[in-house]
Amino acid sequence: MTAQPTLLLVLDLAGTFVFALDGAVTALRVTRLDIVGAITLGMVTAIGGGIIRDLLIGAVPPATFSDWRYLAVATAGGLIAFGQGRWLQRLTLPITVLDAAGLSLFAVTGASKALDYGLGAIQAVILGAITGVGGGTMRDVLIRRIPAVLHRGLYAIPAIIGAGITVAAVRGGVFGPISAVAAAAVCFLVRMLGVRYDLNAPGPPRAPR
Amino acid sequence: MTAQPTLLLVLDLAGTFVFALDGAVTALRVTRLDIVGAITLGMVTAIGGGIIRDLLIGAVPPATFSDWRYLAVATAGGLIAFGQGRWLQRLTLPITVLDAAGLSLFAVTGASKALDYGLGAIQAVILGAITGVGGGTMRDVLIRRIPAVLHRGLYAIPAIIGAGITVAAVRGGVFGPISAVAAAAVCFLVRMLGVRYDLNAPGPPRAPR
Amino acid sequence: MTAQPTLLLVLDLAGTFVFALDGAVTALRVTRLDIVGAITLGMVTAIGGGIIRDLLIGAVPPATFSDWRYLAVATAGGLIAFGQGRWLQRLTLPITVLDAAGLSLFAVTGASKALDYGLGAIQAVILGAITGVGGGTMRDVLIRRIPAVLHRGLYAIPAIIGAGITVAAVRGGVFGPISAVAAAAVCFLVRMLGVRYDLNAPGPPRAPR
Repeated sequence: MTAQPTLLLVLDLAGTFVFALDGAVTALRVTRLDIVGAITLGMVTAIGGGIIRDLLIGAVPPATFSDWRYLAVATAGGLIAFGQGRWLQRLTLPITVLDAAGLSLFAVTGASKALDYGLGAIQAVILGAITGVGGGTMRDVLIRRIPAVLHRGLYAIPAIIGAGITVAAVRGGVFGPISAVAAAAVCFLVRMLGVRYDLNAPGPPRAPR
Repeated sequence: MTAQPTLLLVLDLAGTFVFALDGAVTALRVTRLDIVGAITLGMVTAIGGGIIRDLLIGAVPPATFSDWRYLAVATAGGLIAFGQGRWLQRLTLPITVLDAAGLSLFAVTGASKALDYGLGAIQAVILGAITGVGGGTMRDVLIRRIPAVLHRGLYAIPAIIGAGITVAAVRGGVFGPISAVAAAAVCFLVRMLGVRYDLNAPGPPRAPR
Repeated sequence: MTAQPTLLLVLDLAGTFVFALDGAVTALRVTRLDIVGAITLGMVTAIGGGIIRDLLIGAVPPATFSDWRYLAVATAGGLIAFGQGRWLQRLTLPITVLDAAGLSLFAVTGASKALDYGLGAIQAVILGAITGVGGGTMRDVLIRRIPAVLHRGLYAIPAIIGAGITVAAVRGGVFGPISAVAAAAVCFLVRMLGVRYDLNAPGPPRAPR
């Protein structure tokens, strides 16, 4: 991940921004919030997954929390959602696309960081997925929704696939900017196919749904 | 705890498996989940308490997360619950018994580990109880239930008793396989008596219930 | 903060006590709890914010958890709320005042501790606010309420102001008992003005409320 640090930082900040925007817009749609609530939920959505990952691997203070740029773009995302929420709610497709991009990027960088800290392959895949879905899950708990990732759509599975490709590439000694982008692209593609064709992870057998 | 490491590992893995199974079955009864949700909630129930304990004592990455065997049995528990949930829901008594066994074991091992990390006696008792009840509490929060431990039945109290006996035995210099099993047995017995006679922790005085 | 350690300890313990009392009273008002639930929610409210802060700055085991005096006063607060909850619910004003005092104190001590651990100014302000509002937020999640801090009244904003003054004083080299009390007093004043005049943080523009 060291070959293109500037590109990766820009992508990571872009993912943080769109997660904050999307997270706060979703929260405002579901419940009543003041400006503090909108910014808080935007931040939680954007950096919550990375914070859980960093707590579990012992990287404290968490990176996204220490670096003011992440806090700044997350705050900006929450603020814009707060001020323009009604207008933004109409931009469903662009937000879905950007959210999928954030998910893909976080899955790849999350898995890569877990390996850097010496965790095993399975753990790194799980941590990649947690980085991608953890923030939205925390937001859903705070606004009293059952986290969407547990019951709806293809969301965790693309993240697991993207993190899995990342781990395989690192273990195979071929991880670099190209394989990172490829892993993120596969995650993105699976996620968007899921959206396009309304795919879901399998439900319980013969249970009334 | 070093006298019978294999026995203890087997018991610990058995506790993890049954907590995952029980946790996912409970979650499937309460809400709609896909396969990702069932496995996630099984894992959260099984290893969530140990993760909270390890974060609080600074043992990162958490042991149950680092060791793939815990992840494997927790995943297996969640998968079986997902596939066989409707049938498993009829096995109320065996699952209650196994759940009580898991609670007892986790309370003892949790308190013992906290003492190993230099925490005080009161803290070790609390951490033993958290190890036992923390995972189920996290699951309940995720599926939007008020955690059962806060208002129903005797669940935290047996865990506190088991953890308390463990701490007393360690401090008295008599902790070993026999006293560990004895502490777990007392916890198990109190829990099962609570189930059998439908005992509850005291409610608020004169409050309408 | 070393000039008056006894005074500060007394204030900190007083804040912990009142947060536990207030937290358990609030929880008992909203939902049905047994004695374990009341004590647990009192403790969570009182020491939860400090625990989140300490996990994020890497100060484990968390201070309020290691020190039995915090656990003792938190337990006492929860127990008194449990036994006298119906009577205490009538003491609205004294409890609001004490809660504001606890918030003010925790915001100041939380921000100061974050700076001691080498975090930046923005992070310290956020951590001061988290120390003040984190415990109540955790309690609200556990009893299935949307955290009040996200949508109602002036609660996070006074904490942010108090933490901000603290950080400015430390960075300006003038932090001591007097500036600590001044920062807490400003936070307290803003909070009480918000209560008195029923002020709220701004809501979304033109959204139906």
